[in-house]
Order: sequence, then structure tokens, then C-alpha cells
Amino acid sequence: MSKIITIGREFGSGGREFGKRLAELLGFPYYDREIIAEIAKRTSLSEKYIQNIAEHKPVIPFPIHTGRTFWAVVPDFGQSVQSEQHSIIREVASKSDCVIVGRGADYILRESKPFRIFVYSDIESKLRRCRENQSNDYEHADEALTDKELAKRIEQINKGRADYYEFYTGQKWGDKANYDLCINTSSIEPGKIAEAVKILI
Amino acid sequence: MSKIITIGREFGSGGREFGKRLAELLGFPYYDREIIAEIAKRTSLSEKYIQNIAEHKPVIPFPIHTGRTFWAVVPDFGQSVQSEQHSIIREVASKSDCVIVGRGADYILRESKPFRIFVYSDIESKLRRCRENQSNDYEHADEALTDKELAKRIEQINKGRADYYEFYTGQKWGDKANYDLCINTSSIEPGKIAEAVKILI
Repeated sequence: MSKIITIGREFGSGGREFGKRLAELLGFPYYDREIIAEIAKRTSLSEKYIQNIAEHKPVIPFPIHTGRTFWAVVPDFGQSVQSEQHSIIREVASKSDCVIVGRGADYILRESKPFRIFVYSDIESKLRRCRENQSNDYEHADEALTDKELAKRIEQINKGRADYYEFYTGQKWGDKANYDLCINTSSIEPGKIAEAVKILI
Repeated sequence: MSKIITIGREFGSGGREFGKRLAELLGFPYYDREIIAEIAKRTSLSEKYIQNIAEHKPVIPFPIHTGRTFWAVVPDFGQSVQSEQHSIIREVASKSDCVIVGRGADYILRESKPFRIFVYSDIESKLRRCRENQSNDYEHADEALTDKELAKRIEQINKGRADYYEFYTGQKWGDKANYDLCINTSSIEPGKIAEAVKILI
């Protein structure tokens, strides 16, 4: 069976950088939201999906959890895209060892017993990281924002991640019970964490 | 400054075993509740304390958190013992590098910036560990108990730890935000965790 490492992460806690370092150290392929979305665009599965959309409104198998009202799981176009991405996650994980960042991969791949990591940090550290990366692709980090405004944006993004995760998994995002390892990146370097994880998996 | 490692742990998650392994690997002195209580009994500080008790009801400086009603912090004999233990924790941590398990040491020593670990595990793993250790000193693990009864006891003990921690620190016990590293010991060996932590500190 493939050795699969999943990384959940708070926005601004350096999860992507850590994930890339870890994949590099282990020699594993690396996948995150952008890469998975790109694969979804290019695969034949995706073409089949577009065709499906053209023919009829798709019905998608979602986990329906006790106590969740039905309206919350009525499929729509956005969910269909997610379902497609979930299929891709299952596909890439079945093919080789890998590191997958985000997308609730820990839950999607739960039967394959992935090593589940969650990365978080304090707000000061998140602000610092966002400021450092403002010239990169952090679309929500804007140098014109005050610290208070940026902190609010970070919180909003993380609320979105929590909602996404909880909707698709029925589990609480960032609850340590759902992970093998939770790492506070406020004062530990990504490279060191990658070395430590190499020992643990 | 001393390198201090604190370990909070759910009962049954192997925190003590891991702490001992880590201390051994690092060549650091190891302290846990029993050892700290033993030091408290033997030190001159303790004698001074007994004398103090004999003379007048002690007044102990406790952190009083906003919103906490006053009756909750009225000092009594039990709190005085804890205060004594907290002094010992501060004393041993000031003398050398060390590993300290339990007693809210992460909070007591917060100004020294300890490396704060929390160890937890799922209930099946806790039950297994308690059964394996029933011939040792786990006073609450009784082989005559059913799994359900033992699980209830484990939960009670952990409730006690949470109450103790929250009373003295005003923080939520086991909340990952208060730790640098949270490790699920359900499927990772203590020796491996110790090796990984050695890299991180």
C-alpha cells in the first residue's frame, strides 16, 4: 500500500512550504489544491464530468451524517467539482506514495490509513508569514491592510477552510483527535519539522 | 537558559513512558507528579511550609483570572500543596535542562519558553495500554473492570486532569494552541516520538 501523508493547515501557518519540503525530503510527489484543480481540468475524468453536466444534473454520493439536515447535502455545481477533486485525490493516492495538502484528504483517504498532520500557528506568526509572502501568490494578503484587517482576513479564510472540511467530513477541522500529529509552526522551521516527520512515518 | 521540555498527557496515552524515553535520549533529568511530590516532602521548603501551616492559614499567590469568582481561589490546604509543587517545578527548571511531565508545567514555566508537548490517543489504545500496565502502578486500572467501566474511569481521570490544569492556568487543557507539538500515540511508538522531538527542540 502507498505511504500517504496528508497535511491540514491553517492559512498563514506555512503548511504548503512544509508540505513541499517534506515531499522533497521523502522523494514523494506533492499535491495541493491548485495542482489537484489543474489535474481535474486536464483529465478525461473531467471531460466525462463536463459531458455529464451537459446531459443531466449530477447526483453525487456524499456522506450523509446523522443530524445533518438534508438541504445541506443537495448537490450543486460546486459540490460536483469537489467530488471530481476527491476522485482525483483517491486516484493519485492509489498510484504512489504522496504528500497531499488540504482538501480534506485525511478523511477522503481514511481507509488507506494516511499519516495525518495538522499545521497551525499563532496569529503573530501568521501575520509575519503573510507579510513575507505578499509578493507571492497569497491573494488575500495585501500590504495596504493593517495588521487588524489582515488578521480578520486570515480568520475568514480559516473559517472557510473549517466550513469546507466540516461539510465534507462531518468532523471538526483542526481537532487533534483527527490527526496523528499537530505542529505549531510559530517557532519551528519547516525543514526541521520535515526531518522529524520522516522519523515518525 | 535551561532547555525545558514539558509534557501534558491524557491518562492512558503513554505520556510517562514517552517522557522517560525522551529524558533518557537527551540525557536530561526527568520529573513527574510522583517525583515532584517526593521532593516536596523532603526539601527544607517543605519543612518551612509545615511550620507555616502550624502558625497561620497560608495565603497563596494564585493567578486570578477575569471572570473567575473569588470563592474558587480561596486558598485551602490542597492548594497550598500545589503551590509548593509549583515552586519546586520552577526550582528544578532553573537548575538544568529537564523533562517535566504533568502539573501544568508548560504554564508555570511559560516565561522560560519551554518546548510544550501534549500526548493523546484514541480510547482503544488507552484501554490496551491500561490493560498491559495493570500489574504496574496504574491504580485505577483494574482487570476486573469491563472495557466500558475502564473507559469511564479513564474519562474521569482525564476530567480531573483537565480541571486541575484549567483551574491553575485559566487555559483549556489539551487545546493545541497552548502546545508546540501534539502527538497521537495510538499508532506511533514512544521511542520514535522521542527521536523526532530531539530534532525539533
